[in-house]
Amino acid sequence: MQLDRIDKSAFADMERFYRAHLINSLSGFKSVNLLGTVSEEGITNLAVISSVFHLGADPALMGFIMRPVTVTRDSYNNILSNGSYTLNHLNEAIYKQGHQTSARYPEEASEFDEVGLTPYYSSKLKAPYVLESQVKMGLQFLEKKEIELNGTILMIGQIEEIFVPSACISEDGYLDIEKAGSMTVSGLDAYHLTQKRSRLSYAKPDRPLKEI
Amino acid sequence: MQLDRIDKSAFADMERFYRAHLINSLSGFKSVNLLGTVSEEGITNLAVISSVFHLGADPALMGFIMRPVTVTRDSYNNILSNGSYTLNHLNEAIYKQGHQTSARYPEEASEFDEVGLTPYYSSKLKAPYVLESQVKMGLQFLEKKEIELNGTILMIGQIEEIFVPSACISEDGYLDIEKAGSMTVSGLDAYHLTQKRSRLSYAKPDRPLKEI
Repeated sequence: MQLDRIDKSAFADMERFYRAHLINSLSGFKSVNLLGTVSEEGITNLAVISSVFHLGADPALMGFIMRPVTVTRDSYNNILSNGSYTLNHLNEAIYKQGHQTSARYPEEASEFDEVGLTPYYSSKLKAPYVLESQVKMGLQFLEKKEIELNGTILMIGQIEEIFVPSACISEDGYLDIEKAGSMTVSGLDAYHLTQKRSRLSYAKPDRPLKEI
Repeated sequence: MQLDRIDKSAFADMERFYRAHLINSLSGFKSVNLLGTVSEEGITNLAVISSVFHLGADPALMGFIMRPVTVTRDSYNNILSNGSYTLNHLNEAIYKQGHQTSARYPEEASEFDEVGLTPYYSSKLKAPYVLESQVKMGLQFLEKKEIELNGTILMIGQIEEIFVPSACISEDGYLDIEKAGSMTVSGLDAYHLTQKRSRLSYAKPDRPLKEI
């Protein structure tokens, strides 16, 4: 494939949405989760996010990026007020509803009702899970770090419990999220299923890799 | 699919690698990039990382997570010493070589030579690109933030230039990274191709989504 060079100076001249689409595509494929929270008044909120990333296994920490809170962000306020949130993988049956949660609904509306997804509660957390999701995590908020460079906020939480299909857990602990139906997103709005090529053995110098 | 609940308390009892596989699978599909750097002495380094994420489009910022620097991390030292690094998407032709860069080679060895990938240099950056990659970014290091909770480090850089197949850029700026052959990773070692289901229109309340 013929590659073309695009310099930083060209980014500045791009139309705002063109630039957003292009730059958002560059990091590679992204996780796509529904962030479930609830307000002090009991209003549930659901927001699709593509910035969740693994931070550590012991303790089990996840991070995600909150956009600048220059406008009201219900999810952000809910997390700060009661400390709990859920992350729920999108799958093919619900990805359109998931995407629709990014519409700007009024604060008093619940995205669960608006898009037609079902809240599910465990005894451990206040925040609602998405019943239709096949891989769900419940988290306790631990810390936020502001990125002064652009006003975004790194949100860090610890996993309190998970709901996963045990039929998808391999002998070595690997959870086959492809088998669980999880999707991935590229750019701002492209949703993909996946096709596993292989798992590769732990790499060591001078030892050939094996497919496992 | 039958879901099973696993509590945080069970994580502590898991064998260390079992836990690492499970927790690393939970965030969802991840980007997979080769991080290219060079030392003051001119020794090139290449490391596969699955934690690159989008931080902002204007300015164009990318983040990634560096594991604790309790052992020597050549990439980390190289970035701090000369400020430049590259991120190069893995594709099917090179994913095994990419995975092999995670082996612990001696500091004086170059992973390019060890795994058989070709360094490519632009006039703008010191750090080497991976010739065989179809989506490449060159970055200037801007800032690091230590995550005290577990000693990992958030590394933030600004995109200086990109090399992408212009045949994969849509009219609205979206870069079709599936068409470019980019892969995604789940857990620690599972590599996947993707199959696009659809792109969805910008969501607004009371307006049905369209596939675009």
